[in-house]
Amino acid sequence: MNKSQAIAYLGPVGTYSELAAWGYVQHFCSGSSPDLVPYPTIPQAIQAVVKGKQHLAIVPAENSIQGSVTMTLDTVWELEGLQIQQALVLPIKNALLSNCQDLSKISAVYSHPQPLAQCQNWLDQNLPQAQQIATNSTVEGVQAAKQNPNFAAIASPRAAKMYQLPVVVCPINDHPDNCTRFWVMGITVPTISGTHTSIAFSLKKNMPGALVKTLAIFAEREINLSRIESRPTKKSLGDYIFFADAEASLSESRMQEVILALADITEKLSVFGSYGITAIAG
Amino acid sequence: MNKSQAIAYLGPVGTYSELAAWGYVQHFCSGSSPDLVPYPTIPQAIQAVVKGKQHLAIVPAENSIQGSVTMTLDTVWELEGLQIQQALVLPIKNALLSNCQDLSKISAVYSHPQPLAQCQNWLDQNLPQAQQIATNSTVEGVQAAKQNPNFAAIASPRAAKMYQLPVVVCPINDHPDNCTRFWVMGITVPTISGTHTSIAFSLKKNMPGALVKTLAIFAEREINLSRIESRPTKKSLGDYIFFADAEASLSESRMQEVILALADITEKLSVFGSYGITAIAG
Repeated sequence: MNKSQAIAYLGPVGTYSELAAWGYVQHFCSGSSPDLVPYPTIPQAIQAVVKGKQHLAIVPAENSIQGSVTMTLDTVWELEGLQIQQALVLPIKNALLSNCQDLSKISAVYSHPQPLAQCQNWLDQNLPQAQQIATNSTVEGVQAAKQNPNFAAIASPRAAKMYQLPVVVCPINDHPDNCTRFWVMGITVPTISGTHTSIAFSLKKNMPGALVKTLAIFAEREINLSRIESRPTKKSLGDYIFFADAEASLSESRMQEVILALADITEKLSVFGSYGITAIAG
Repeated sequence: MNKSQAIAYLGPVGTYSELAAWGYVQHFCSGSSPDLVPYPTIPQAIQAVVKGKQHLAIVPAENSIQGSVTMTLDTVWELEGLQIQQALVLPIKNALLSNCQDLSKISAVYSHPQPLAQCQNWLDQNLPQAQQIATNSTVEGVQAAKQNPNFAAIASPRAAKMYQLPVVVCPINDHPDNCTRFWVMGITVPTISGTHTSIAFSLKKNMPGALVKTLAIFAEREINLSRIESRPTKKSLGDYIFFADAEASLSESRMQEVILALADITEKLSVFGSYGITAIAG
């Protein structure tokens, strides 16, 4: 095992990101057992890779209910040179954990903002009296909930076992088909060519129809976009960065043509590389 | 004053939404003084209009730093018949309020998730020890912070005065040009034709390049899109609703042509009407 092969993830031990990291190791690291290194925030996990401290970072990119993980998009846009090595799709089963088995006596629920949002209807109906408290990770929520017998947390059944906090109800997702896409990010170009290519770009000012012209570049080469997402540049209202996922690989000449054409008409263009998408077990 | 002219907003009294509602009354309701009625959540404020309980709802749609208010987008997609009457742009000045003047002694900061995110760097640097607790509104945060001398809240300087909690630091925004766009929503078609039109649509399945074809409909008529945003349908990963703002009015024949063409190729199309954008004082 080599320190330079270690994998950063949004920790601590027991988060959905760690589960995704284990899934990645099982599928793609046969014969080796890389270190899994927890980081307290998404930007810190990604920066560890950019600074060369860790080889890869595994971070959530999008949830089927809540949409993009905007912290991940904003971070990969700000930092230079990140390449997606692989996308992982993990089913998410949220459980309510507490030492208190009587729902009416639970006064506070701790979790990461995403699981809180994914269970909003359930919480409104079953724990209307409980304060909802956002934590940096699901596991931080479990640790907080262990401090007081009337507190609860939303986390995975696996975290319940690891931190010895009983499952009261599971699942409590508002939508049954809840899953999260993770990105495995590094700074090297992946050796496998992949099926999808992710890019981000900002548009030149005062260029009417610039967004449509940009998207037409894909259409002319019959490349489908599976996703487009806008994020604010944080400079002024109405000024955006666009993230797009194309269903083609950079190993194809039509995709290389797209990149050249985009470089011409965008203000800034980031190419995050081509990768495959793998479903992993929850 | 007529009950049917009342305006619902994300309350309680003292929120940025109330400030936007007062700005709307000043600009657009000369001679009348409609009731302003607070609601605890964005969906409840919007539903009050759909159910005919209130005439208008004023809700945040987008922040220049944090991006879309996804709760608003998801709600207007689910409910039928909502029309945007006006967009309002309000500068946001976030203040730290507390009875404790010593930052190192503050153990918790309460606010709505949007202001918490807008001040994330400031909080990381100045209050690394403080727990960040999400509330349904900035004012709910102020009320929580008043309960304990070591708690703080992030809210407007106006809320500080109204709820008599001292301002410790102001502003604490990470980005100085922080502003929020609000939508004034009703179920009647506005009498003023407006400059912008907002729509949302989902795409037919198994239609490659469907998104690009949709956007080309605007480009062919030289209508610029100032914004496009995807939201998950919550059915499965990779299945989206798209929200778009076009720089044209429904009173123009080219925009009417766009709507007809879109109805043909989309799975579901919602048209939220045409409206103007007004800057209001903070």
